[in-house]
Amino acid sequence: MEKFTIDTGAEQVLQNWQGPVEHVWQRYQEQEPQCGFGSLGLCCRHCGQGPCRINPFGKPDKGICGADGNIMVARNLLRQVTAGAAAHVDHAYETLEVLEKALSEEGPYKITDAEKLKGLAHKLGIAVEGKDIKDIGKELVAKAREDFQRFGSGELNWLVAHAPKERVAKWRELGVIPRNADREIREALHQTTMGMDASWPNLLLATVKLGLVDGYAGLKLGTDLQDILFGTPQPVFSEANLGVLTEENVNIVMHGHIPLLSEKIVEWARKLTPEAQKAGAKSIQVSGICCTANEILMRHGIPLATNFLAQELAIATGLTDAMIVDVQCIMPSLASLARCYHTVLITTNPIVKMDGATHLEWSYQQADEMARKAVELAIAAYSKRDPAKINATREKTTLMVGFSVETIISILSKIDAQEPLKPLVQEISNGDIQGVVATVGCNNVKITHDYLHVNLVKELISKDVLVVTTGCSANALAKAGLLNSEATEKWAGPGLKKILSLLGQVAGLDKPLPPVWHMGSCVDNSRIGDVLTALAEYLGVTVQQLPVAASAPEHQHEKALAIGTWAVAMGCLVHLGVMPPILGGQEVTAFLTSGAEEVLGGKFFVESDPVKAATVIYEHIQAKRKGLGL
Amino acid sequence: MEKFTIDTGAEQVLQNWQGPVEHVWQRYQEQEPQCGFGSLGLCCRHCGQGPCRINPFGKPDKGICGADGNIMVARNLLRQVTAGAAAHVDHAYETLEVLEKALSEEGPYKITDAEKLKGLAHKLGIAVEGKDIKDIGKELVAKAREDFQRFGSGELNWLVAHAPKERVAKWRELGVIPRNADREIREALHQTTMGMDASWPNLLLATVKLGLVDGYAGLKLGTDLQDILFGTPQPVFSEANLGVLTEENVNIVMHGHIPLLSEKIVEWARKLTPEAQKAGAKSIQVSGICCTANEILMRHGIPLATNFLAQELAIATGLTDAMIVDVQCIMPSLASLARCYHTVLITTNPIVKMDGATHLEWSYQQADEMARKAVELAIAAYSKRDPAKINATREKTTLMVGFSVETIISILSKIDAQEPLKPLVQEISNGDIQGVVATVGCNNVKITHDYLHVNLVKELISKDVLVVTTGCSANALAKAGLLNSEATEKWAGPGLKKILSLLGQVAGLDKPLPPVWHMGSCVDNSRIGDVLTALAEYLGVTVQQLPVAASAPEHQHEKALAIGTWAVAMGCLVHLGVMPPILGGQEVTAFLTSGAEEVLGGKFFVESDPVKAATVIYEHIQAKRKGLGL
Repeated sequence: MEKFTIDTGAEQVLQNWQGPVEHVWQRYQEQEPQCGFGSLGLCCRHCGQGPCRINPFGKPDKGICGADGNIMVARNLLRQVTAGAAAHVDHAYETLEVLEKALSEEGPYKITDAEKLKGLAHKLGIAVEGKDIKDIGKELVAKAREDFQRFGSGELNWLVAHAPKERVAKWRELGVIPRNADREIREALHQTTMGMDASWPNLLLATVKLGLVDGYAGLKLGTDLQDILFGTPQPVFSEANLGVLTEENVNIVMHGHIPLLSEKIVEWARKLTPEAQKAGAKSIQVSGICCTANEILMRHGIPLATNFLAQELAIATGLTDAMIVDVQCIMPSLASLARCYHTVLITTNPIVKMDGATHLEWSYQQADEMARKAVELAIAAYSKRDPAKINATREKTTLMVGFSVETIISILSKIDAQEPLKPLVQEISNGDIQGVVATVGCNNVKITHDYLHVNLVKELISKDVLVVTTGCSANALAKAGLLNSEATEKWAGPGLKKILSLLGQVAGLDKPLPPVWHMGSCVDNSRIGDVLTALAEYLGVTVQQLPVAASAPEHQHEKALAIGTWAVAMGCLVHLGVMPPILGGQEVTAFLTSGAEEVLGGKFFVESDPVKAATVIYEHIQAKRKGLGL
Repeated sequence: MEKFTIDTGAEQVLQNWQGPVEHVWQRYQEQEPQCGFGSLGLCCRHCGQGPCRINPFGKPDKGICGADGNIMVARNLLRQVTAGAAAHVDHAYETLEVLEKALSEEGPYKITDAEKLKGLAHKLGIAVEGKDIKDIGKELVAKAREDFQRFGSGELNWLVAHAPKERVAKWRELGVIPRNADREIREALHQTTMGMDASWPNLLLATVKLGLVDGYAGLKLGTDLQDILFGTPQPVFSEANLGVLTEENVNIVMHGHIPLLSEKIVEWARKLTPEAQKAGAKSIQVSGICCTANEILMRHGIPLATNFLAQELAIATGLTDAMIVDVQCIMPSLASLARCYHTVLITTNPIVKMDGATHLEWSYQQADEMARKAVELAIAAYSKRDPAKINATREKTTLMVGFSVETIISILSKIDAQEPLKPLVQEISNGDIQGVVATVGCNNVKITHDYLHVNLVKELISKDVLVVTTGCSANALAKAGLLNSEATEKWAGPGLKKILSLLGQVAGLDKPLPPVWHMGSCVDNSRIGDVLTALAEYLGVTVQQLPVAASAPEHQHEKALAIGTWAVAMGCLVHLGVMPPILGGQEVTAFLTSGAEEVLGGKFFVESDPVKAATVIYEHIQAKRKGLGL
């Protein structure tokens, strides 16, 4: 790793990093060299006879139980994908609980997008005509609950209603359609305990099943319910990077993934602005990190502070008065770092606590009170800032975001109201758009921060590939200035520039759409799945046949492995920029990077050079175009 | 480790081990030295930034995310206990599916113990008077299903109905009562992903919650439903050790944990005995390994072949014609070993497959057909034995088993029909029985096979401590000859001998009961929980006050950590003979081995010397006796 980051905002703050605690890059350096056994997936600590390590070049070639490298790697991978799916399913489930309460009780949350609710209900086979919206909602909740409660055999409602028919048939043939999200999680965990599955193909099929749990009972369900509750994103303009944290405002940074609380914080920050002004601030600036950022950015235009790898730097600006975290990707280091500053670190979820943080637990009925209290804590902290510790940056970019499927369809329908997908398909056919690539996922300290996201995407858009993005990839691209019209002028290839200019025009802008469409948070990868499903069905082809690919250039979280598995199961080529711990299982690796294509339509490839990765993706797109006769 | 085993049967077969494949002790030697980081719990591979290792003596003292040793260890422990709980819950759930079908369809399974069903229904608040047994059963199934399906808040029915009231209150106060088994498993997995809980006390509370999932939605539910389906064990005599495999019989060895299939194998082995005789055999000998062994031993007197660590030796006798495995603790090495012999290795569960094994998948409707086929394969294999590879032993012991709670109460009620617990309590009061210790759990290759089980128990019974046992501990004690009347004569202290002689008499034997009461499989640790609950309630004290303790001298499986956590949560002192991977978290270790006592009533202690362990346990018992004024 030559440098820590290509993010100029992060770099400025990092240059003036004031100890005494270490930042993530220092902790990474201390960890080097990392364990080779673990890196290859050849370490097992499931049972108390271990830890076992397999030597890839000789003896021992088996664990104490007799598991070889393929079994060990496949077991580890299944357990990781299961954990990732569990994270997303837990997120969706929590949202489901809120939707159910919002439909049946008076309380702080209500239905925002009734049309989305009706459309989903219709897809799930629920009659909607002439019915009260709350009754439709309750039937929808019942359908969602079935996907956690179904006893015995059956198939996930959410999957059957939303996946391409051809995929459902394929998955049924392979026996990988989940019966009930929680049951599959429990079973997969069981399957990876000592003395269970010793067949790597069977373990990989289970991994695919858990990928589908993630895709439908995690991502898709999560997005759908969040849109119903908080609204489906529409085009909105905002800003990104640590420069959104300025001295004059009370700064509240929201970090995590579930927008239940952040919606309320946004509301209360507005309401309590006069209090902040009494305390001497100009206003209250809410901003975000990771996917909570994406949720409130997409729905309210709340600016993005930064993404995963730079989360500590938000505190290190000395300007973050409160950082409020919910779940996932929250570095445990934040607590000791916040202690070095005036920052109030507030944890809010019962399964995310930190020694030294203030714990204000979110609950449905107390959501308003709790959000008010959190904002008040931020205002109180504002006056405790230490000027000597301020380490600000002015770096920020502008962005246009809000590319939900509904937004995309709405823009396209201004060209063809009857068949909104037609103009997009025509542009792909005529080659102005060569294909569509989704870049998603995290940062990973093993890769220069944002480097692979940004440089891969610059390559792709210069070759007339339209990029859609979510998660910390979207955040990286936002900070690099790729989410605005100027980026189209600057980096898009000629065909892409032409169509984006046209679309900008019909969308009522006087400039092109950005070359990278921000579709939301990591759970909103479901929106990308919806686009692929709609495109394939419109064309009467399979997802596998489309000139598309997905990439998680800097993935780190187990969630990313689950999402990637779902994408491969959908039939996508999935690029990873960091090698997952699979190389110790030669047959497993061969399957994931090659054999999977025959069985599932999709496969993984790993490449940490952005130009080389873009080349492989572009060649894949060309092959698919050729297959379609384009 | 001075020697591999103290089991004379295993030792004889081991002495003539015929390669070319390695056995478990050889694989262990190849793994040495084992990784110190993993052994201390200071290795994390949850996210793709790792693997991270913490140096217990310096830097790095944190993972890349910032997690310190306590967080890392607590996260790893929670994930292990969750996996263990998932294994037991999956087992119980599978049994629940069978019970539901048995109540509503014609098919191969039926209710065997209607009285047990009624008793349980009553405890769960289901009216039983005048109702058809199938209707009662269906209401019971509905109550059980709630424990997997409950949405929103609530408490496990099985826990509330069966745990001591005082414990329920304590667990409620700590917020650790599970809402729904599957939800807690999913949430715990989420909680241990990157960037989630960074509070080791919160992680340990979650671990306790998962221990309760294990105890009530795994163990207790599993035992209860199995007793309803297959009958509650009653006293029965049998034999143990590899000597039960003889040349004249077709030998079918059942290995695993769930008795759904093994019940059918026992039935079909009987029916197809004439076929075996046609093939030249005297008869068909079914025997067992691990907990499937215990299930059919307890209910049908089927002999025990051996326990976990010697499972390969059953094949290495050259006399195992078919080994039929279901789930858990099945060494992946069996497949390559079976290929060196004539043994047909048959896998039967969709999540346990093995390259080279014959997969005959069990299903409810096909259970009979599938069992018949498996027995036929064994008969066909019998004629393919290679005399040159026969490596038999004549070692075997006699046993009296079947000590369900119902058996114990039935024997005691012959002394006092009104208050059957009274004579037991009196014997404890007067000191003839100093206390009761449960020895449970696995073998672990790190400890000379069976050594710690056997020598700990010999110490304890010599000090007038009554031992109850389950799992591979029971199997170890069986093979060591501790489960028969002679053992009472030989090893029991004078007080224990006196009462066991009396009980033998009232039970209609002309000799004493054994000094070690075999209560069943690992899920049947619930029976031990029932005894403790009944004793505490009868005396009006807490479990913590009783002169009792539990021990898993040679534990290896994640299930054992889950069971141990449940026992500590019940208020028990729990001895472990092998150090779990916790020492890297000093505060976590201090809590588990000391602080837990104040919060939960129980705690762990680790000691690999049987005499020292017995001394600590005995002193604990003495302290508890003193506390009760005895």
